[in-house]
Amino acid sequence: MSRLIATYHVRSDARAIAARAQGIAVEQSVEMPLSAIEDRQILDDIVGRVDDIREISPGLFAVRIALARATVGDDAGQLINMLFGNTSLQEDVVLHDAELPDDLVAKFAGPNIGFAGLRERAGAGKRALTCSALKPQGLAPSRLAGLAARFARGGIDYIKDDHGLADQSYSPFAARCEAVAKALRESGAHARYVPSLTGDLDALRAQIAAAKSAGIDTVMVQPMIMGLSNFSRLVAENRDLAFFAHPTLAGAARIAPPFLFGKVFRMLGADALVFPNHGGRFGYTPETCRAIAGKALAEWHGLKPAVPVPAGGMTIHRVAEMLDFYGSEVMLLIGGALLDARERLTEATAAFVETVKGYRYG
Amino acid sequence: MSRLIATYHVRSDARAIAARAQGIAVEQSVEMPLSAIEDRQILDDIVGRVDDIREISPGLFAVRIALARATVGDDAGQLINMLFGNTSLQEDVVLHDAELPDDLVAKFAGPNIGFAGLRERAGAGKRALTCSALKPQGLAPSRLAGLAARFARGGIDYIKDDHGLADQSYSPFAARCEAVAKALRESGAHARYVPSLTGDLDALRAQIAAAKSAGIDTVMVQPMIMGLSNFSRLVAENRDLAFFAHPTLAGAARIAPPFLFGKVFRMLGADALVFPNHGGRFGYTPETCRAIAGKALAEWHGLKPAVPVPAGGMTIHRVAEMLDFYGSEVMLLIGGALLDARERLTEATAAFVETVKGYRYG
Repeated sequence: MSRLIATYHVRSDARAIAARAQGIAVEQSVEMPLSAIEDRQILDDIVGRVDDIREISPGLFAVRIALARATVGDDAGQLINMLFGNTSLQEDVVLHDAELPDDLVAKFAGPNIGFAGLRERAGAGKRALTCSALKPQGLAPSRLAGLAARFARGGIDYIKDDHGLADQSYSPFAARCEAVAKALRESGAHARYVPSLTGDLDALRAQIAAAKSAGIDTVMVQPMIMGLSNFSRLVAENRDLAFFAHPTLAGAARIAPPFLFGKVFRMLGADALVFPNHGGRFGYTPETCRAIAGKALAEWHGLKPAVPVPAGGMTIHRVAEMLDFYGSEVMLLIGGALLDARERLTEATAAFVETVKGYRYG
Repeated sequence: MSRLIATYHVRSDARAIAARAQGIAVEQSVEMPLSAIEDRQILDDIVGRVDDIREISPGLFAVRIALARATVGDDAGQLINMLFGNTSLQEDVVLHDAELPDDLVAKFAGPNIGFAGLRERAGAGKRALTCSALKPQGLAPSRLAGLAARFARGGIDYIKDDHGLADQSYSPFAARCEAVAKALRESGAHARYVPSLTGDLDALRAQIAAAKSAGIDTVMVQPMIMGLSNFSRLVAENRDLAFFAHPTLAGAARIAPPFLFGKVFRMLGADALVFPNHGGRFGYTPETCRAIAGKALAEWHGLKPAVPVPAGGMTIHRVAEMLDFYGSEVMLLIGGALLDARERLTEATAAFVETVKGYRYG
């Protein structure tokens, strides 16, 4: 029977790790005493199996567990449930990675247009992409549209909503889409608006309809808040849209970000992966960031690459350093630091864009 | 302007806590430098405000932050986004609790029938409720139905799916509902079947329709996997159903379980709250468990109480101790330990039920 291989990092005493690993294998499969299982076939084909235990540093073990493909079915929510559902409630363990069989990955779409498609839409050639963010929340659609026009005149490629923007009374979603899209058309620039979708699946569909009716072809989603199953459904229903995935509520360290963003979000259809860059407001290390970018771009089950979007307190002063670090295979996102230029917003944006365009890619 | 008060527990140096608290207030509201905000109204009404900082143990601070009600709108997903979205990516902080304004809580239903309704349906009077679980996964519907009948003949009140049971090829959801419901009818006992719902909102609705058509009036959901907005939507659409909330993927310690389960899940409509009991397979302390039960039952914005369901490796030997601990205001859930009785499943269930019925409630 086909298996997926989940790798957990477990803090444990060396004498206890074998039993702890077996405990995870049971928790993530049949969740009951094996002595109570009468069926040979369930013991053979359904119960999780510890494949390998390796000490990677003192007191920290990499545990590889083979989980039955059949328990997942074709549902993205059930995939994360079987990989980490109850085990997420135990503090000694992190879901580090998983290897998935081809037929499972093939149930999902991967990115609709991927990094190459996002570059092509922006006419960006082989350079890094640029992005900024509309905020603060509390502004009316007309004010956000004014900011968008100034970003656009500075030459930015993509303008995403701050992930706090939803469908609030002071900035209703549909009115915001109309206002920003109109301002971008009138700017004559090539920038694309990426509104943030929120709510239940019905609300998400209604927002996509409103965005499309405003001529928008790229949207941002919050997979850990909307539910992975709903994310997957929206991607399948909208093959013409590009999706930015935002990391909100993705927690820190309990599910390894390179796996969650670079594999799961990409597999479910993220074209662009927003994540906290090292040295900003969040604690991700350079190694974690490099691993996220690596996974997002790597050949994996034939899926289109997604573009890594390191963000979170970035400034124009860091552009060269970030391009040194990530190369051209990246979308740079600077939000608040451009807005902080206030009346010089267009000029600050242009300086950001020119730095990216003028960088000597190796 | 109306505010919600979020309390975070932050590990910090005493000299750094004021700036760190202000950082969280900005992160969870406008997410940009305040120097870039031109509007007085946004600074006054939208930006998060640090209300209080108190050291609760050396190096650990309780930080109260007032967040604008207006940023949440009426959406449950946006509520958790504004309470903990980006801050969940920072390792030094836990969302401990939140006080919500009446008009926000009133947007949600709370439990449809609550603890009292679950007791009434079971004809349980004032005693504790009993519950068991169908597993292992891998069994066909007819086999699960056979187990259910034996639990029922033992006198159990509720029989829930193991949360790993979904809509897999070896046990399709609709066929399972039909088979288990029929077996329970034929048993002549009063037990109710509580199937576990999975998938996107469309799939969840289809499963509810299948469950109702089999005569089922209680279901289990996984709020952190399905998305809080979708949970809230299902409760609103199905006022006749009772909902068990399962804690899968709820993580450990990053959102305090008493808040997440006892307030948020209850507010969104959980009638019964399954959580890991202390001393079982999970690391929750007795204090955490007591706090979860306390929040589930407490008077809070006029919502119906939800019944706490401590679980996870419980055995019949712990029943008296658990009733001493929780009193009669509880549903006891024993799964694998009853199944481990194998051919004596009905007798073991009856012993469990009799122990609960015969306990001298104080």
